[in-house]
Amino acid sequence: MPGTFPLKNDLLEARNRIRQHIHYTPLLTSKTINTLLEAEVFFKCENFQKAGAFKFRGATNAILSLSTEDQKKGVATHSSGNHAQALALAAKQNHIPAYIVMPENAPKVKVNAVKGYGGIITFCKPTLQAREETLAQVIEKTGAREIHPYNNFLIICGQSTAAQEVFEEIPEPDYFITPVGGGGLLSGTALACHYLSPATKVLAAEPSGADDAYRSFISGTLIPSTNPNTIADGLLTSLGSLTFPVIKDYVENILLADEEFIIEAMHLIWERMKIVIEPSAALPLAVLLQQKSQGENFFKGKRIVLLLSGGNIDLNKLPWQ
Amino acid sequence: MPGTFPLKNDLLEARNRIRQHIHYTPLLTSKTINTLLEAEVFFKCENFQKAGAFKFRGATNAILSLSTEDQKKGVATHSSGNHAQALALAAKQNHIPAYIVMPENAPKVKVNAVKGYGGIITFCKPTLQAREETLAQVIEKTGAREIHPYNNFLIICGQSTAAQEVFEEIPEPDYFITPVGGGGLLSGTALACHYLSPATKVLAAEPSGADDAYRSFISGTLIPSTNPNTIADGLLTSLGSLTFPVIKDYVENILLADEEFIIEAMHLIWERMKIVIEPSAALPLAVLLQQKSQGENFFKGKRIVLLLSGGNIDLNKLPWQ
Repeated sequence: MPGTFPLKNDLLEARNRIRQHIHYTPLLTSKTINTLLEAEVFFKCENFQKAGAFKFRGATNAILSLSTEDQKKGVATHSSGNHAQALALAAKQNHIPAYIVMPENAPKVKVNAVKGYGGIITFCKPTLQAREETLAQVIEKTGAREIHPYNNFLIICGQSTAAQEVFEEIPEPDYFITPVGGGGLLSGTALACHYLSPATKVLAAEPSGADDAYRSFISGTLIPSTNPNTIADGLLTSLGSLTFPVIKDYVENILLADEEFIIEAMHLIWERMKIVIEPSAALPLAVLLQQKSQGENFFKGKRIVLLLSGGNIDLNKLPWQ
Repeated sequence: MPGTFPLKNDLLEARNRIRQHIHYTPLLTSKTINTLLEAEVFFKCENFQKAGAFKFRGATNAILSLSTEDQKKGVATHSSGNHAQALALAAKQNHIPAYIVMPENAPKVKVNAVKGYGGIITFCKPTLQAREETLAQVIEKTGAREIHPYNNFLIICGQSTAAQEVFEEIPEPDYFITPVGGGGLLSGTALACHYLSPATKVLAAEPSGADDAYRSFISGTLIPSTNPNTIADGLLTSLGSLTFPVIKDYVENILLADEEFIIEAMHLIWERMKIVIEPSAALPLAVLLQQKSQGENFFKGKRIVLLLSGGNIDLNKLPWQ
């Protein structure tokens, strides 16, 4: 039902709504990587976004779209990842409370990041059931609005704004590649390409060890993620009921990358581009490196945008060590 | 003898000479660091410069200033650090040979970097005497021009161009802080401030474990570096006969940082700014953190430019591990 998708105007409105609240992130290039891939590659650096990831775009769009009354009650989510940090900071910037449910075994560095942004944390047992139940209790008590990390059209429209920025600088690139976890970034990007740069083919990049989106895409049926195993800890989730239909309609293909290529891509970006990205952000380059190693070069001579999704990583635990 | 210093026009000519050959590097800011220091801090990101460090500016200026005849014979230096890489790449871009003398125990990552930029390497015993003798032999044989890493006015003028770029974006900042090793960057920056932004005070940042510039500055006599001990491996050298007089005349003060503050500053920049810098580049922030920890806050409310000198680091050997 394409009629239920966000419209072009929804995307443009999101852009205008959040424009003054977010960073317009740079597009970087690397001569070394261009030479290696024999292509013209542009890196959209969402690792430089506020709270260190693209998630701040969607969170800001969702919060700014709430009524004044709802804003006062605040927002809530269960997450231990970038969405939690983004929602906490976006709420803080708008002077409203953010209630974050986190598993009691969440890494201290992530707990501290959410606390640092003023998030109000409720800990729970580390099971999905406990997280959902605890979130329901928090919402019952506070009246806060739940902001789902990806299965929410306001989030999807917010995430589309990264691609909207890109098209101002690079009109109609041949390919646009994003990582895929829950599909918020991917579906937002796919809609932005559909409405604003229809000649651009959208590809998704997913770890081989967490290939539920790939299998869903191939089979046409939403297959949940089970026992994912990858260092790309931002890509462990399943697609959602809102993101999957957009992906089915507007994404050209989903490509997989093995762990060795994810690590190689991440290392290459740190070493040659001198920027810090998290493993999940390495996926778009990783799939190109893997394709090339397999003799594929569909991207040769093409103009390709790779979205670097975030830069939040524990600097004491690097995957090449 | 200030009359023997490079003149304003020498600096401006260097800027025009190399403009098309180098990266105009960005000035980044961090809300977290501004809040921490209660100041307005701008980071000039020479880690994004070609070959990963500011050294490419001076090397390019020196090479472009050679006669056509001299260019054909090439350039030579002994170095295992950023100057070697910068000279090799600048030579390659101008299609001339670069002869680099390196100690046989130089880290493989550095040897490979010079090779990757097309440098012609001659290995020697790891002593200063062997390096100088081997370089003399190479020059004797090839007729190449020696390009000293810092004790050379063309190098100093080239390094001044980073500050020249800064003043286009931030006119007359209160402070400009660079690391100091041999003093090429520091003296170039001090001259740029003197001629183009005289209200700006120039400070240098040096490791406590390699404090020869500090002791030279205080005593007024050039004291060579002996047994330096610091992770800031770009700052082990002594000041030169050309750089020290400029520093004496135009630098306000030299501040020291202990290793713990160098590591803290480096970690803070990686974690919050999501960029890769080498330990030497952390010195300017390190001295501010150390001053603050000692109750000093001369910089409170000031506009301060910190020069991030480079980003070449072995990613397998990080100082906080």
